[in-house]
Amino acid sequence: MAPCTSYKLHYFHLAGLGEPIRYMLHYGGLPFEDIRIGAKDWPEHKKKMPFGTMPVLEVDGVMFTQSRAICRFLAGRVGLAGGGPEECLRIDEVVDAFNDLRAAVADWFYDGNAQTKTPKLGPLLDKTIPFYLVKFEAMTKANGGYLANSKLSWADLYFCAPMTWFDAMLGRSVLDGYPGLQELRRRVDALPGVAAYVASRTNAEKLCPRFAGQ
Amino acid sequence: MAPCTSYKLHYFHLAGLGEPIRYMLHYGGLPFEDIRIGAKDWPEHKKKMPFGTMPVLEVDGVMFTQSRAICRFLAGRVGLAGGGPEECLRIDEVVDAFNDLRAAVADWFYDGNAQTKTPKLGPLLDKTIPFYLVKFEAMTKANGGYLANSKLSWADLYFCAPMTWFDAMLGRSVLDGYPGLQELRRRVDALPGVAAYVASRTNAEKLCPRFAGQ
Repeated sequence: MAPCTSYKLHYFHLAGLGEPIRYMLHYGGLPFEDIRIGAKDWPEHKKKMPFGTMPVLEVDGVMFTQSRAICRFLAGRVGLAGGGPEECLRIDEVVDAFNDLRAAVADWFYDGNAQTKTPKLGPLLDKTIPFYLVKFEAMTKANGGYLANSKLSWADLYFCAPMTWFDAMLGRSVLDGYPGLQELRRRVDALPGVAAYVASRTNAEKLCPRFAGQ
Repeated sequence: MAPCTSYKLHYFHLAGLGEPIRYMLHYGGLPFEDIRIGAKDWPEHKKKMPFGTMPVLEVDGVMFTQSRAICRFLAGRVGLAGGGPEECLRIDEVVDAFNDLRAAVADWFYDGNAQTKTPKLGPLLDKTIPFYLVKFEAMTKANGGYLANSKLSWADLYFCAPMTWFDAMLGRSVLDGYPGLQELRRRVDALPGVAAYVASRTNAEKLCPRFAGQ
């Protein structure tokens, strides 16, 4: 870990894909500038982002995109990576499976056409979300409360950090009925560094505003 | 590399998300069983897959899902991973950005509703695809013909392997007008191990059948 490294996170003022990065930086005690772009400033800021998307992490002035790529990199710096290729594979697998679920929720939530959006909600709530959560719940049972490798890893932070966003999008406590995942979320939110950040969050950060290009 | 490791790839009889894994196994000279599931057998086979999806790679009988997780793991075994955390981050970034493009193409191609599908094609061809390809083309210019770190990596195989599928879906040579990417594709398709595989492919593998649950 390079203590003098400068980190700047560019993201919206919400949890979403930026929150796992915030969790990891806070967990690792790595000071960073938590730049939060509002709807008004986004069109101009978007032009400066390498792929017109956020999150972007600046590391000593160099911009990196893609939330999972950034988290995997930070995992190495804060001690949350796998202990070898097989462990890394298990972590990557969980993270990408969770991202499939996230994409399905976002595909419904951000659908601006009521005609196509409305019919998506039933299958999302009745099939897709339970399909994944049952599997993730089973993973916590098989891994001593964690998602992979029977120990804390960045997969756990990647899963738990955006849960405020999931809850806000779906208007419910998404993890209700999944005690292993609820316990994991409690545990992650209580991690050193993370707990103070979670306690400091304002309501605005927990909610999920919608605006173009988000 | 463990020479006695047994690899079995479960995927459809098409390029898609399985092709980068085939490329990597062929490149590394790792013998594997290339199991190709037809539309008729998919509903039954789907039940045996950990997340009901393919590709799945069995490594000594243990099943792993998620194409990028699998490729990143194999990259370590065949010498195509980054040389350090920053190089790995650059590779991951390109791979995930390419996957965003792939998802946009698939979102159009697999949309079963003509009313929503038809209006997607124009912006896809005129905006989304050029937006990404211009950036990837610039990367080849900045990286001595490769996508990242000025050397061959699994990002190059991940990008080039599914191009037959892209071309088939879009009914055109997607890389036309992007000489750096065309050259990269030629170079990747001529790699030791890969070249023989590419020469052996049948037309069926280059095309892109559509069926439910794919």
